[in-house]
Amino acid sequence: MIEFDYNAKGFVNENDLNDEIELARSFVQRAQEDEFGGWVDLPINYNKEEFTRIKTAAERINLNSEYLVCIGIGGSYLGHRAVISALGNNSRTKVIYAGNSLSPYEIEKVLEEIGDSNFSINVISKSGTTTEPAVAFRIFKERLIEKYGEAEAACRIYATTDAKKGALHDEAVEKGYESFVVPDNIGGRYSVLSAVGLLPILVAGVDIDKLMDGAEEERAALISDGGAAAEYAGLRNALLKKGFDIEVLANFEPSFMYFNEWWKQLFGESEGKEQKGIFPASVIYTTDLHSMGQYMQEGRRNLFETFVKIKQAHKGVKVPKFGEDLDGLAYLEGKELSYISKKANEATEKAHFAGGVPTISLTMPELDERSLGALIYFFEMSCALSGFCLGVNPFNQPGVEAYKTKMFELLGKPGYDK
Amino acid sequence: MIEFDYNAKGFVNENDLNDEIELARSFVQRAQEDEFGGWVDLPINYNKEEFTRIKTAAERINLNSEYLVCIGIGGSYLGHRAVISALGNNSRTKVIYAGNSLSPYEIEKVLEEIGDSNFSINVISKSGTTTEPAVAFRIFKERLIEKYGEAEAACRIYATTDAKKGALHDEAVEKGYESFVVPDNIGGRYSVLSAVGLLPILVAGVDIDKLMDGAEEERAALISDGGAAAEYAGLRNALLKKGFDIEVLANFEPSFMYFNEWWKQLFGESEGKEQKGIFPASVIYTTDLHSMGQYMQEGRRNLFETFVKIKQAHKGVKVPKFGEDLDGLAYLEGKELSYISKKANEATEKAHFAGGVPTISLTMPELDERSLGALIYFFEMSCALSGFCLGVNPFNQPGVEAYKTKMFELLGKPGYDK
Repeated sequence: MIEFDYNAKGFVNENDLNDEIELARSFVQRAQEDEFGGWVDLPINYNKEEFTRIKTAAERINLNSEYLVCIGIGGSYLGHRAVISALGNNSRTKVIYAGNSLSPYEIEKVLEEIGDSNFSINVISKSGTTTEPAVAFRIFKERLIEKYGEAEAACRIYATTDAKKGALHDEAVEKGYESFVVPDNIGGRYSVLSAVGLLPILVAGVDIDKLMDGAEEERAALISDGGAAAEYAGLRNALLKKGFDIEVLANFEPSFMYFNEWWKQLFGESEGKEQKGIFPASVIYTTDLHSMGQYMQEGRRNLFETFVKIKQAHKGVKVPKFGEDLDGLAYLEGKELSYISKKANEATEKAHFAGGVPTISLTMPELDERSLGALIYFFEMSCALSGFCLGVNPFNQPGVEAYKTKMFELLGKPGYDK
Repeated sequence: MIEFDYNAKGFVNENDLNDEIELARSFVQRAQEDEFGGWVDLPINYNKEEFTRIKTAAERINLNSEYLVCIGIGGSYLGHRAVISALGNNSRTKVIYAGNSLSPYEIEKVLEEIGDSNFSINVISKSGTTTEPAVAFRIFKERLIEKYGEAEAACRIYATTDAKKGALHDEAVEKGYESFVVPDNIGGRYSVLSAVGLLPILVAGVDIDKLMDGAEEERAALISDGGAAAEYAGLRNALLKKGFDIEVLANFEPSFMYFNEWWKQLFGESEGKEQKGIFPASVIYTTDLHSMGQYMQEGRRNLFETFVKIKQAHKGVKVPKFGEDLDGLAYLEGKELSYISKKANEATEKAHFAGGVPTISLTMPELDERSLGALIYFFEMSCALSGFCLGVNPFNQPGVEAYKTKMFELLGKPGYDK
């Protein structure tokens, strides 16, 4: 469903590229068989009983809550925020976020926004002991108990956590919270299509059946030999070998800002290890054409640019006519904004390529659930294949512990002496 | 006012560093005398009559408008959004943004949010013909005229534009809009402390006297020999010469997201030319410690990290006590979140340095107007000095035209034949 195209003429030669693509193709099975490869077959092999419970829970939350406070960080946070931001929060329950930083201001803003409204909590944490979400969970749980008492509060807490063990799992069992599973065989950054993402996404009014259908369709296109995901993965590595060590993901829709953040985690955390990996960055155009655009056009030539495009134009706002043409826009009168945006995109690709930037384009059919499900799956598969081509394990994140260990020392956590 | 510190032991040697700093110091006067160096003396040499008119206009907008639609892109947009996001919109008028992209969805969202509320427009454009703001201006002007009629609409439009010429200037004169000046001697990305930024910032309830005071204080500290700004600029260039070609600006406050975007424009557009320039990227921690953190800790070792810190901790939310210690957080009970955040920051710097990342820290006294004014000035001076050290003109942006020319061709703009 995701169309892949590129322009790297003069930057990589065809044989090198084909070798990399062949290599990428060879890793599909390895991804599927990996102990953390559960995301590969997830779109055809998810827990139907849990899926039904997610729907029932979302209905209840939509009935009794103006807000759902989603508490999680990293892979327990970015995926659902990306989907909800891109497609919009169209239900009566607004999904808001906490526990993704240690900023006191942010927590205060969320508490203030909720005010006296009815709310529920979805706490998403495999272990239940990650500092940021654990701190936020204490704060919002306390507020919930104050407002509703212990018994009703327990009915308003939804725990997405380990199936069998861990602090949050044990608390959920003891207190009787409804629980959903963070699968053992899927790492955080690949988990958006599991309960981790699906509950908040559905609460926001996004159709998760269509989202999963899109992922399933894309899986069908990629599962035999990696399809276009292998081409993208191969091209990335071929470019890296030629010194292109920064990839800039470019979008023309500001609502994709969190999708870009999700993508940066996916690729940065999967490939940034053993002193390797393309540095992932992102821009939102045309805003950033008046900002990072200068660098893209004429800065150091060690970057390539990947455009995420939407084929079906959104019909809506047009350029109004004014009798006088004071601003010189008469030639655009009556034109759809989406038409102008498309031309701006085309122009940007051409201008940057001419300036020495290899360009890639990934086109989704529409801005809807099905296309976004497909795009998510496409990037997950690409990322796994690309990481294997690079010679790293795309499913671990050994470096994330370093700052935590130092922080626990500084905070005097029992067991962490300097 | 901005304290500079760094840890680059083993990455640059002291002589090279001192040479670069000396070089940076030598450019202060050149910046001041440049035809686009008007920002250097702006904090002590701004137009007092205009400053008073800005205050009167802001009062009027606060009285008669629930929304101020700020229409601008790039340097006419990012600065005020950065300040308002960091300090909060604390007046009854909410500043919202349009004309910074070509997305039809974004325009529709703003139209919907305004609904039947009273609003005014601040259109910010030197020429008045830049496509994105010009299109948005037509759309919101049409709405304003529908709602209020031609005469009152003209009283609700504030034009920040060229003092003497251009499409927007001419329209403002013809229609009688109140006008403010985009100075000739200050480029867009250095213009936040001129009328470009000050009107929206004041409408949002931020104290612009204190903002200017902070900039003035910082100017006093830097104007003789560049002070800490020259040290930062020198260190950046010394690191670049050792192969550190990506700078990651790191913040622990999510409300600094747009400040990071402003910073990326400032440095990216000033230095990214002639195939040169450090690639500017940004992260918000601790969120991104669970995302880009892996890359920062263990990825390619061609990056350095600049932390923006706030000295005075915000007293507020604390970790609540719970009788049972199910989540293992008992050791943090009663602690301020800002204390934990500070320790996380310290831990991150240590961990990343140990992982091979040179670290820089820039500390502002508080999260307030004065400190932010100082920080803005500090970065402007650093950027100018750093660009001169690199051997480029930090005040032009020749590459921004390339995509525009292509776009005008594709859109069939008169005078742009293929």
